Amino acid sequence: MLNFDNASTTKISKSSLDAYVKASEDFFNPSSLYAQAAKVKQDIEQTRDFFKKQFKAKQGSTFIFTGSASESNNAVLNSCITRKDKKYIIGAGEHSSIHNTAIKYKEQGYNIVFLPLKANGGADINALSGLLDQSVAFVSIIHVSNETGAINDIKQIANIVKEYNPNIIVHSDGVQAVGKIDINLKEIGVDYYTVSAHKINGPKGIGALYIANPNKFKPFIIGGGQEMNLRAGTENTPAINAFKVALQEIKPYDYSKHKQVLLQNIDVDYYLVSDNECVDNIISVCFKGVRGETIEHILEQKGYIIGTGSACNSKAGKNRVLSQIVKNEYIDGAIRISFDKDIKIEDCVNLGKEITNAVKLYKERTKR
Amino acid sequence: MLNFDNASTTKISKSSLDAYVKASEDFFNPSSLYAQAAKVKQDIEQTRDFFKKQFKAKQGSTFIFTGSASESNNAVLNSCITRKDKKYIIGAGEHSSIHNTAIKYKEQGYNIVFLPLKANGGADINALSGLLDQSVAFVSIIHVSNETGAINDIKQIANIVKEYNPNIIVHSDGVQAVGKIDINLKEIGVDYYTVSAHKINGPKGIGALYIANPNKFKPFIIGGGQEMNLRAGTENTPAINAFKVALQEIKPYDYSKHKQVLLQNIDVDYYLVSDNECVDNIISVCFKGVRGETIEHILEQKGYIIGTGSACNSKAGKNRVLSQIVKNEYIDGAIRISFDKDIKIEDCVNLGKEITNAVKLYKERTKR
Repeated sequence: MLNFDNASTTKISKSSLDAYVKASEDFFNPSSLYAQAAKVKQDIEQTRDFFKKQFKAKQGSTFIFTGSASESNNAVLNSCITRKDKKYIIGAGEHSSIHNTAIKYKEQGYNIVFLPLKANGGADINALSGLLDQSVAFVSIIHVSNETGAINDIKQIANIVKEYNPNIIVHSDGVQAVGKIDINLKEIGVDYYTVSAHKINGPKGIGALYIANPNKFKPFIIGGGQEMNLRAGTENTPAINAFKVALQEIKPYDYSKHKQVLLQNIDVDYYLVSDNECVDNIISVCFKGVRGETIEHILEQKGYIIGTGSACNSKAGKNRVLSQIVKNEYIDGAIRISFDKDIKIEDCVNLGKEITNAVKLYKERTKR
Repeated sequence: MLNFDNASTTKISKSSLDAYVKASEDFFNPSSLYAQAAKVKQDIEQTRDFFKKQFKAKQGSTFIFTGSASESNNAVLNSCITRKDKKYIIGAGEHSSIHNTAIKYKEQGYNIVFLPLKANGGADINALSGLLDQSVAFVSIIHVSNETGAINDIKQIANIVKEYNPNIIVHSDGVQAVGKIDINLKEIGVDYYTVSAHKINGPKGIGALYIANPNKFKPFIIGGGQEMNLRAGTENTPAINAFKVALQEIKPYDYSKHKQVLLQNIDVDYYLVSDNECVDNIISVCFKGVRGETIEHILEQKGYIIGTGSACNSKAGKNRVLSQIVKNEYIDGAIRISFDKDIKIEDCVNLGKEITNAVKLYKERTKR
């Protein structure tokens, strides 16, 4: 099987898994007092420093390790959405761990407003100024859309927000950005930034959260004082080590030819959601009069795994993000193709042809 | 080094780690639609069924997999502590992930009352009836104390509570009970029960939560609908599989001789907190006029790792649990010894002698 659903999750690399296994030897609890425990603690702090260097974190900031990016995102909203007299701006195309948490707060009576999307699934920055007023306390915009690959200019967004009022807290979910675009947190100027390991060939069950001002963060999981009192739970040192290795192994990779060749080989009408302002490794494309789910099943028989909208939205019926930006007749026929380094140009040629066949086959079948 | 701090954390077993590595091959996102993803989903459901069988869960209940027991405990309190006109009873000897979360709610104005401890660190069941009134909504009592090993009769506690008012929700943190005492959740009659993998030679970064009535549970981490909409985040399938193997490998083990021999070989005055109503694998013992931390360091030089109160309480200065039940002159000299199957009787003889030497050495040093 050829996997074109890499934006959903990735296989842990051999070196990352090796790091996990190796770190399992040093199993002692870093909160304990003896030398073996202190060594584990030191390892974690070195990894934390590596994260700060890797993402060019600002002085005085930190990273905490969490159980997932979903936890990181929940933690940010838990810390920042606290007053019913404030306004909270959430991107209309956020990952479900932001979106559904924001909806929970909205249902509790908090003033949540959504920043609309552009046609490519990115945030409509032009609409941002219109939402800003003195009551705004928080803005959360995804860095790269998990549905369409749209890149949001978080630096510009943070600039607009902070120029209006420097006290407004800005968060970005960078899960799909890591390894795909350059991330310089000091320059971007966000207060919080979410990253995940399992999207970059690291282990599942580990995420991290950049916290620009640790003294302003209200912990989400409370308990034994781990992670500088910012996130309780015995440290998952094997996964933390494996995450580090996954980050170290990231090499920028140009998927523009993959995208171009794939699209060239699709010989039926389509509507391309993922334009030039998207990362090249995620392609959201829609076909009129077909069901994406069926296309996916036909392709599976041919040896190709693709996505039909993000896995995190798969249970909700209509795709929440695409339904805001794609004409009704196209939504049901949406598929998501995402590359990784194992995918060759030739594979993209073949997938394009198979997609063509699948769409034609679907239409023939339903004609009868 | 001989590790007598096994209650803090344990090394992952070879078979559990092998299961982690093996399950890393089936890396697909169980929320996706294709066959490979469906297989992963099926694996998780089989593991869930195994947990239900293993812990004799009641019909209609479920287990969710979390990032840690601390998350499980936080999730229960988040779901159950919701009204300021209700009373919430929390054991005075709970793990810090319950205690400190309860304190957070108390500071927010919720009515939190603590059930006092007996001398061995167990809950004083006789005091429970006095705390029950019509406003009580929730009771949380640890099954086995992580500080002293005291076993709480959760079945009796749940009976007293449910007889008073069957609508009161009962939770127990079973992290230190799993593998040490028999657990029959249907019989115990609790609504929630917390378990963890890394205390039973499973992986770090994975816990589980028993939920008797899933429709009454309010999710803690919100997002992509994973875990029957009860806990968001891409499923950590390798760790879930490894947790299962760790559970499968548990064999009841009698540490009573270990405890007896250790204590027989301590030839200085001591105060034993862990009485006969404690699990035999955790021993809390105190020495007058010494510092537990120093005893720990002296023993470390001799090749023995011991604990000084639980790692989760190590940063708070005075031990929160022991300070409620041990005379002031003994608290500073508290140590915690915990066994696992690698510890031989002979090791206990030697540790007892070395503790004796360490206490004597400390007193000689400070005399000068």
